[in-house]
Amino acid sequence: MSTSYDVIIVGGGVNGCASAYYLSKSGKKVLLLERERIAAKASSAAAGMLGAQVEVTEEGPLFEIAKESRAMFPSLQSELKEFSGIDIELVQKGMLKIARTEKEAQHLKQMLEFQQRLGEKASWLDKEAVLKREPALGGELVGAMDIPMDGHVNPEKLTHAFAKAATNLGAVVKEYVEVYSFQRDKDSVFAVETSEGTYSGASFLVAAGAWSKRLLAELALPIPAYPVKGECFSVITERPLITSTIFTDSCYIVPKSGNRLVVGATMVPHTFSEHVTIGGLSSLMSEATKALPAIATANFERSWAGIRPQTGDELPFLGGHPILKNVLIATGHYRNGILLAPITGKLVADMVDGLRIPIYMSAFSLNRLKEPLKR
Amino acid sequence: MSTSYDVIIVGGGVNGCASAYYLSKSGKKVLLLERERIAAKASSAAAGMLGAQVEVTEEGPLFEIAKESRAMFPSLQSELKEFSGIDIELVQKGMLKIARTEKEAQHLKQMLEFQQRLGEKASWLDKEAVLKREPALGGELVGAMDIPMDGHVNPEKLTHAFAKAATNLGAVVKEYVEVYSFQRDKDSVFAVETSEGTYSGASFLVAAGAWSKRLLAELALPIPAYPVKGECFSVITERPLITSTIFTDSCYIVPKSGNRLVVGATMVPHTFSEHVTIGGLSSLMSEATKALPAIATANFERSWAGIRPQTGDELPFLGGHPILKNVLIATGHYRNGILLAPITGKLVADMVDGLRIPIYMSAFSLNRLKEPLKR
Amino acid sequence: MSTSYDVIIVGGGVNGCASAYYLSKSGKKVLLLERERIAAKASSAAAGMLGAQVEVTEEGPLFEIAKESRAMFPSLQSELKEFSGIDIELVQKGMLKIARTEKEAQHLKQMLEFQQRLGEKASWLDKEAVLKREPALGGELVGAMDIPMDGHVNPEKLTHAFAKAATNLGAVVKEYVEVYSFQRDKDSVFAVETSEGTYSGASFLVAAGAWSKRLLAELALPIPAYPVKGECFSVITERPLITSTIFTDSCYIVPKSGNRLVVGATMVPHTFSEHVTIGGLSSLMSEATKALPAIATANFERSWAGIRPQTGDELPFLGGHPILKNVLIATGHYRNGILLAPITGKLVADMVDGLRIPIYMSAFSLNRLKEPLKR
Amino acid sequence: MSTSYDVIIVGGGVNGCASAYYLSKSGKKVLLLERERIAAKASSAAAGMLGAQVEVTEEGPLFEIAKESRAMFPSLQSELKEFSGIDIELVQKGMLKIARTEKEAQHLKQMLEFQQRLGEKASWLDKEAVLKREPALGGELVGAMDIPMDGHVNPEKLTHAFAKAATNLGAVVKEYVEVYSFQRDKDSVFAVETSEGTYSGASFLVAAGAWSKRLLAELALPIPAYPVKGECFSVITERPLITSTIFTDSCYIVPKSGNRLVVGATMVPHTFSEHVTIGGLSSLMSEATKALPAIATANFERSWAGIRPQTGDELPFLGGHPILKNVLIATGHYRNGILLAPITGKLVADMVDGLRIPIYMSAFSLNRLKEPLKR
Repeated sequence: MSTSYDVIIVGGGVNGCASAYYLSKSGKKVLLLERERIAAKASSAAAGMLGAQVEVTEEGPLFEIAKESRAMFPSLQSELKEFSGIDIELVQKGMLKIARTEKEAQHLKQMLEFQQRLGEKASWLDKEAVLKREPALGGELVGAMDIPMDGHVNPEKLTHAFAKAATNLGAVVKEYVEVYSFQRDKDSVFAVETSEGTYSGASFLVAAGAWSKRLLAELALPIPAYPVKGECFSVITERPLITSTIFTDSCYIVPKSGNRLVVGATMVPHTFSEHVTIGGLSSLMSEATKALPAIATANFERSWAGIRPQTGDELPFLGGHPILKNVLIATGHYRNGILLAPITGKLVADMVDGLRIPIYMSAFSLNRLKEPLKR
Repeated sequence: MSTSYDVIIVGGGVNGCASAYYLSKSGKKVLLLERERIAAKASSAAAGMLGAQVEVTEEGPLFEIAKESRAMFPSLQSELKEFSGIDIELVQKGMLKIARTEKEAQHLKQMLEFQQRLGEKASWLDKEAVLKREPALGGELVGAMDIPMDGHVNPEKLTHAFAKAATNLGAVVKEYVEVYSFQRDKDSVFAVETSEGTYSGASFLVAAGAWSKRLLAELALPIPAYPVKGECFSVITERPLITSTIFTDSCYIVPKSGNRLVVGATMVPHTFSEHVTIGGLSSLMSEATKALPAIATANFERSWAGIRPQTGDELPFLGGHPILKNVLIATGHYRNGILLAPITGKLVADMVDGLRIPIYMSAFSLNRLKEPLKR
Repeated sequence: MSTSYDVIIVGGGVNGCASAYYLSKSGKKVLLLERERIAAKASSAAAGMLGAQVEVTEEGPLFEIAKESRAMFPSLQSELKEFSGIDIELVQKGMLKIARTEKEAQHLKQMLEFQQRLGEKASWLDKEAVLKREPALGGELVGAMDIPMDGHVNPEKLTHAFAKAATNLGAVVKEYVEVYSFQRDKDSVFAVETSEGTYSGASFLVAAGAWSKRLLAELALPIPAYPVKGECFSVITERPLITSTIFTDSCYIVPKSGNRLVVGATMVPHTFSEHVTIGGLSSLMSEATKALPAIATANFERSWAGIRPQTGDELPFLGGHPILKNVLIATGHYRNGILLAPITGKLVADMVDGLRIPIYMSAFSLNRLKEPLKR
Repeated sequence: MSTSYDVIIVGGGVNGCASAYYLSKSGKKVLLLERERIAAKASSAAAGMLGAQVEVTEEGPLFEIAKESRAMFPSLQSELKEFSGIDIELVQKGMLKIARTEKEAQHLKQMLEFQQRLGEKASWLDKEAVLKREPALGGELVGAMDIPMDGHVNPEKLTHAFAKAATNLGAVVKEYVEVYSFQRDKDSVFAVETSEGTYSGASFLVAAGAWSKRLLAELALPIPAYPVKGECFSVITERPLITSTIFTDSCYIVPKSGNRLVVGATMVPHTFSEHVTIGGLSSLMSEATKALPAIATANFERSWAGIRPQTGDELPFLGGHPILKNVLIATGHYRNGILLAPITGKLVADMVDGLRIPIYMSAFSLNRLKEPLKR
């Protein structure tokens, strides 16, 4: 092997590709290895919501990086368009988190108060105001939290845009190359063994989503992650039914361009199966119809499933390997993979550059793992 | 135009293709013209049930030809396999028509009595016997009519098999050729004007399903037909859930090879739209789950819609044009298009050959149209 | 039928949808009827080149409207993004028209001189300059005409963006509705008979591409148009191979976003078949490989065919029906359908508004038809 | 883990599924684990030729098992139809191995003589006889070896039929379950660690095609196997062009049902990429057109690539692990995976049953590996 890379990335999902992009921008010689195709798994299955505020109930590091990452999208959109020609279809027309009962309304108002205290834009809409804003909504409805800054992108295009922009900046992206194992000495890795041979590098990033667990086991780092299947479907409506993303406690409905609505998502833990079941699809359809009755007349387009990496404490693993000092890890983004991709890519590039990383990052550190690590 | 054909068929669905096959077998020089692709419409959308007995409540000509056509399938299967290489996937493992209430049971028992009087094989199964035969059934269940002779085929393959067998016997099948109008004198047609020029023939067959109405209007024969959309979906199960076709008053479930189940069908009149709506799909899924609870764990495969030609009195139009003596018509098969294709093709060939056709055929005659015909 | 429309458009291709958009913008109540789906035919098959200058050898009306239409795209892009959310993927990175022999070079230089005389931007690049600009080009190469203003869009998205923007402005767009005939008196049409009933309107536009001929025959206006099939294919390359569109005398190669290249197109006259033949695909591949050798290592994505309406004199039919005064026609755009869609839509709206239309428009008038028209 | 299986099979390709079928038939409790979907890789990419005689130049064990396996197909067809409902589309209409030059003819005649000596049916056809049999052949043509017993099946259906028949006999088939590693003691394996937990078993079979190498490395058995990509395409012809399979030195053309022809295959070693390149597709098309000129007018259907496991000495690995006594291996079938699946499945079942296996099987033994094995 004559070529040696600055950074070898394992995983061609949105976080691997974002890292390839930011690393290439900072001048690194990057090799990205993907077992199947770019964006083959969760990254193309996501609805692409940038829901930084929608599920946060307490101040903390996840909220911090979520907001920071969300703020990166507008300039990223033009950058990626320039470097890759791909439009990531960023839309920031707000999100309504619906309360169907008084109890849910109480809960949302507390969340709102907390967010307002932190200076976040959000407000309460009563039933009348919600229906004025989104007249097509129906069913049980008490009010909604209005989050004007949240929005969405096309997750598959975002991933491809990162990959193509990285490639166009000099990165090498290889599809259909599987990483089998790592060659290492006591405290660092120097090469990966793959289905197409050995590649050596100075640093390594494991960003293989729900498939990271096996790779980290190869690196003596057992993590308590597990896959959670999410089923979704999309429809095309004759006219636009909604302008904001609608978020209830049992489904979300995201208005995409061209009168497409994406509805998600079930949560089926502990399976890598990408099959969509009748039970899952049927319940999603009935929940969506409750929230938005006119969706019953919409044209079904397709259904699919993605496998998201859940970590147990719902925080991603983002940081260095506790022992192998040139190995970085970025996985466990669960339902926030698209939202967190820009900040993940940027932090990975900062870490490789030896830059100081924000103090709140310690929350995502691999050091939080209780299990003793074997060398 | 140098070539002249014995018979020119308009429509590449199952009945046009069956006619092409039987005409070619009897030595005719056949041209079949299809506006899109062979089996593009209802013929590939059907579930392929051969339900001769399932919906018949009275003696009559439809029951006659249905039984006769059903009886043709076993030998047809080997013929078509030989001439086209295509297996039509004939399965004759019976059909259960389910009664969910006492009232439905009464109705079915009457139907049964009538059929037994005619010498048809059918029997009553009480709840216990039904569950012994099909243990996966669930929900409300009083009993079922067991129809051992009914079965199903793969309708798309049947259509292609007819078309390829006809071609291999010398017929010319042209896709993407649209018939605009007919050249005729007082009492006969001598040519069709199409998007690719004029073709002359000795006889003509209109077999364009729900699209026949416009063509017949061109031939001064207004028919009271209209399209009825049917939405369906299919799933793959891990293990076989049922062996018989299950038929309830709100859906049917057909067990295909490879653990595939086809579930149908909605009935949406007066539209040619092939879009599947969320409302339609969702209600089919919930009906299927009621009848067969384990389908909830099955893997969704795909959904689709087909447009069937309904005639008003639910009888097909099968016979000669009242005025234009060399024009035959075979349309309006509604939900029986697959079942009736063999007998339709054979009767068309007989009529072209000037053979006597069975007396009961008068029921399908175009002469039953009340509207005065304009020359 | 209680509703009456200001304008009823027949055809949901790019020109019908563009007309729906401009008419809706000017306040008209529009009904668009499409036999299949929006953008089902040539509009989604095109490569989307905006080649106003690439094939023009003489001053004339086609050159005039081509330039005018091309100039509309930049502002249209933002308008359509706003009204429909869809990005039409406009790229204006120029086009190189390649000369492979001295004779071709002579011809191109004459074309260039003519264009420069008219004030158009274009220049000659010798072999060295061409290779400096596009180092991946290969094979026979003498020089190229560089046309910096030409570019391309995503034609399917353009069509959907027009349709959705029109809908969002109030137009009614109906898919799967076929127009059978027109109800008219001596000098005007007042309704269309369709597969879903009768719709009445004040004005009518026939914009059905290669399928217009039959409709116009129904309106006693035989036109000398015929279909010309064009086969294309696309590939994905690892890195960008070219930045400009490459245009040779036997194929064109258009660089799309995400490292996709679209290669077209064969010309097979007098067929509506959308099948891609091995002969057509194989020759396109070999021509593309001659022009751009590295395309041999690119990954095949898909192939397709579209049916373009050719008129005989290569000018579109754009104007009023010679006798039926409230009938407009917009068809025969042949290989310029995407390029001319904005100006076509705008001129249709102007004509409906009774505005004066540019004098050069007489060249596209239906009055140029020699055949006597029957009432 | 409460359940323990008699045999755990790793790999849901045709050989894994065939083994599941024969093991289930012999009463074993089988678990089959597949990382993606059944028949996802080479098993659905193959053309399905049963070319036992077509490439054999010397007597030997591969020829023995090839003939034996070929002879199993006729009865297998009805068995699998009964147990799974799936028709494997067995066709035995012979194969012509074409000589384009005198030199090739000489070579084929030697092969023929050798085969005749062994009592195999095969004969020489001179040019005239070849063209009489297959009049559509063209290009350079000296003669052909006629192999009447060879034929083909539908490889994807064969694989699914094995899997469904096994399931219906009681086997458990799990898709989307990846085997990470094996739990073992000194001389046997007792469980597999997978992405969905641990499964314990009495015996284990590695049948993961080109992906077996990594798994066997986990079992301390490095094998000299490597992947070889094969690109193919299919077309639909209007009429049947050929009845026999045509085999030249640069491509093969297999006549499937419904007038489909499958053309293959390139050989690109050392890649797992399933992308089809323009270079590969283009050269296949041009070779096929040389051999069968009329294919130029056929309609392109699709193209695809499969990854076959090559072993170095072109013999499969079929036998027990040299050290771990309850581990069997069935991989490295290269271009003979479909042909050899029945005999492979049967031999695996025999080995698990402790039955004696034929003496010629030693040729496929893992003991032929020169490299020392580490415990």
